[in-house]
Amino acid sequence: MGQKVLAMINGENDLQLVAVFNPVAKSQDPADYDLDSSVKVYNDYSQIDVDADIWIDFSIPSAVFDNTKFAIEHNIKPVIGTSGMSEDQIAELKKLADDKKLGGIIASNFGVSAVLMMKFAQVAAKYFDHSEILEFHHEDKLDAPSGTAMNTAKLIHDVQQKDQVNNKNEQDKIGARGGDYHGIKIHAVRLPGFVADEEVVFGGQGETLTIKQSTTDRNSFMKGVRIAITEVMKRDELVVGLEKII
Amino acid sequence: MGQKVLAMINGENDLQLVAVFNPVAKSQDPADYDLDSSVKVYNDYSQIDVDADIWIDFSIPSAVFDNTKFAIEHNIKPVIGTSGMSEDQIAELKKLADDKKLGGIIASNFGVSAVLMMKFAQVAAKYFDHSEILEFHHEDKLDAPSGTAMNTAKLIHDVQQKDQVNNKNEQDKIGARGGDYHGIKIHAVRLPGFVADEEVVFGGQGETLTIKQSTTDRNSFMKGVRIAITEVMKRDELVVGLEKII
Amino acid sequence: MGQKVLAMINGENDLQLVAVFNPVAKSQDPADYDLDSSVKVYNDYSQIDVDADIWIDFSIPSAVFDNTKFAIEHNIKPVIGTSGMSEDQIAELKKLADDKKLGGIIASNFGVSAVLMMKFAQVAAKYFDHSEILEFHHEDKLDAPSGTAMNTAKLIHDVQQKDQVNNKNEQDKIGARGGDYHGIKIHAVRLPGFVADEEVVFGGQGETLTIKQSTTDRNSFMKGVRIAITEVMKRDELVVGLEKII
Amino acid sequence: MGQKVLAMINGENDLQLVAVFNPVAKSQDPADYDLDSSVKVYNDYSQIDVDADIWIDFSIPSAVFDNTKFAIEHNIKPVIGTSGMSEDQIAELKKLADDKKLGGIIASNFGVSAVLMMKFAQVAAKYFDHSEILEFHHEDKLDAPSGTAMNTAKLIHDVQQKDQVNNKNEQDKIGARGGDYHGIKIHAVRLPGFVADEEVVFGGQGETLTIKQSTTDRNSFMKGVRIAITEVMKRDELVVGLEKII
Repeated sequence: MGQKVLAMINGENDLQLVAVFNPVAKSQDPADYDLDSSVKVYNDYSQIDVDADIWIDFSIPSAVFDNTKFAIEHNIKPVIGTSGMSEDQIAELKKLADDKKLGGIIASNFGVSAVLMMKFAQVAAKYFDHSEILEFHHEDKLDAPSGTAMNTAKLIHDVQQKDQVNNKNEQDKIGARGGDYHGIKIHAVRLPGFVADEEVVFGGQGETLTIKQSTTDRNSFMKGVRIAITEVMKRDELVVGLEKII
Repeated sequence: MGQKVLAMINGENDLQLVAVFNPVAKSQDPADYDLDSSVKVYNDYSQIDVDADIWIDFSIPSAVFDNTKFAIEHNIKPVIGTSGMSEDQIAELKKLADDKKLGGIIASNFGVSAVLMMKFAQVAAKYFDHSEILEFHHEDKLDAPSGTAMNTAKLIHDVQQKDQVNNKNEQDKIGARGGDYHGIKIHAVRLPGFVADEEVVFGGQGETLTIKQSTTDRNSFMKGVRIAITEVMKRDELVVGLEKII
Repeated sequence: MGQKVLAMINGENDLQLVAVFNPVAKSQDPADYDLDSSVKVYNDYSQIDVDADIWIDFSIPSAVFDNTKFAIEHNIKPVIGTSGMSEDQIAELKKLADDKKLGGIIASNFGVSAVLMMKFAQVAAKYFDHSEILEFHHEDKLDAPSGTAMNTAKLIHDVQQKDQVNNKNEQDKIGARGGDYHGIKIHAVRLPGFVADEEVVFGGQGETLTIKQSTTDRNSFMKGVRIAITEVMKRDELVVGLEKII
Repeated sequence: MGQKVLAMINGENDLQLVAVFNPVAKSQDPADYDLDSSVKVYNDYSQIDVDADIWIDFSIPSAVFDNTKFAIEHNIKPVIGTSGMSEDQIAELKKLADDKKLGGIIASNFGVSAVLMMKFAQVAAKYFDHSEILEFHHEDKLDAPSGTAMNTAKLIHDVQQKDQVNNKNEQDKIGARGGDYHGIKIHAVRLPGFVADEEVVFGGQGETLTIKQSTTDRNSFMKGVRIAITEVMKRDELVVGLEKII
């Protein structure tokens, strides 16, 4: 993801890469990493003296909390895509940033189509009493349903505030009706050939409404990072979740 | 549609049918129309003396303007699904209602899934530069593309305010790229077996977002009528389009 | 279905309705049923003296065996869509017809798109080790999965002769992976707005193949009946299942 | 594609790589190409003395005819995925192989799902008078419609032998009904986020049948190459098109 971020920054006229940070970097010569000679390469917090607006972090779970804290303390607005922080850690970072009125974002998913799907699902949930979720992933994905599918169900339930009602006389001997979250059925397909598709279907008398998002390349996350960079510059608090700024 | 409206009203606890109006009705006996004995049957404006909240109109183009005007003048909130009025007529009725601070709605489409699709498309249009629209209807539909498809394209363009850019080197000898509205391609499928499906697809690097609505029965419009009834009771102006209240 | 059969026959130049049979018919006057005056109306086997090629039966489970037996014994080729016969009964009828070298068909499903979907699935099953089945029906359907979905799984397994292999490390806490038939996962969606859709998806490295059929009107069965009529005229045995002649 | 072929061969127990041929290879040391020491590396026809069963060719248009001819003359069964030969050249090669009763295949598309889609379309075309084709590709694809879409239309027309009939009163001001091949409408969508999807839809009264294939990775072609290798070993003629052996 780091490489994708660099490529994205290079492609945007209003963004400039001023420095990179990697504690295991042996060389500090930007040429060794195909970076412009103006870019500083740091491998220790103590070296960081650059005047940057944004700290973008797609590093590792063990490093992300300290990195983000460092950024906030040095008034660099954090855009954090690394997962693995506890709710307490996130709360601490948010308080730190908010007290300084510093913009920032921590998001587990920078996929714009996924976030829009979830936002639209919450609107549709006001008008349709019935919905089901389907997701299609490659055969190597171990967890079922996907985090996005589960989140979508939760967001729908948050809006509806009551369990969806299914036919009580249903006879389902083999579990074909799928997983259940407060009456919202969730179906997970695992087949080679799929990358990552998520779909939520709302049904009402004589009509259905389907919102589907398909991810074919994780490059798509860069669109969300780009939006986040623009938005945190305008904000004076740290938000959690891309949906808060879209 | 009139019958569907009556059935819908009967199924809702908080709604009560107090009167029906049909200038060509010969009998004024509600029993002749399987209506409750409490329901008044009118065939002339002059007879109408009922204290009603809502005037629901799915009549004919030649009658709808006078009907709506009559309703507004008598402080009955209009919920109008009949098409055929000119923009001038609609503007006149809106002024009439707004001056009286009377709620009301005139809508060409009471399909909730279609209206939500269009609303969501306008949001997605902010984040995706590229989109195409597909619609699938039965072989008897004469106009292509459908009004909903065309409206969706217009709404997307309203948000984006510039033409979408397609590949200039495209070689399309037979017109397979479909119709074009400011760079938004529109594809109309006509096949027996389809009823009415509309789909808008947004594409970005490595991801797509699809919003699809399917109408299998025009009964679905009653959900929109029901929402409209609830909403106009709370409003003090006449709105045009279901999307204004959803 | 009886009415649909009559309408279909009327629309085909090479078919002629010669008689109808209904044991509970009170009148034997064709005019009482809007039938042509040349059509005989029978309400008892003993009356049947017509020289017909085909006996079409969409009656009731308790009558279908006797009806079919009667037809075969009188050299009228049976086209039977009524369900409810036991395997023994079907075997007996088949022997009866085959001994006489009389063409005929007994089919539980005259939907051509459904039968083709199943036939194509059997071919694809030779080339793809992995498949899943999804079906979408209205909320009033009680059985899950649908008979067509279950049959499709069986036909795929018949071809593959071994269980499909799913990821052993899969973690599915809520049953989202659906029903299982020899490793073929089956997902049943029940939502208002759907009529009857069936879908089988095959996945291989870097590609998927989906075969989907959608039934929006049971009139579609008449195409299968029409094909059956043509085919049984050419045959000298009774077949079970529309797939045998398509 | 060459690298994919090597990886595929390595993964199959019953296949063994014995030699590679590349006229521009500078070194003939297999170690320079990460090949097993038993593999011969040739850069000139004159060197080829290996006893091989199969010649797999994904080279370049200017080389493929001579390569294939050389293979046939030396009794090596050709499996050719390189495009660019004329019909005359293909006919000459076929005669050469057939005269020697040598198995072989020349195919423009080794995608199994695409080939099955086309085969199934030809069967469905017997039972449905109406069909349309949709294809979805990334925005960089220049030709529209895709070759597969066009081929599918041709194959359907070959079976039906007459033009499909569309509604004569259709009003399509902007070309939304798409391209036309003998009445079969073809729709090409070009959006970032898509890789390569092809879809053929058949419509009849009250039902539709859709066959869709999706290619997410060109690795999928290796399945077709693998099938071809097995099949040409059993054959005594050169076939053109993967559909001939599937």
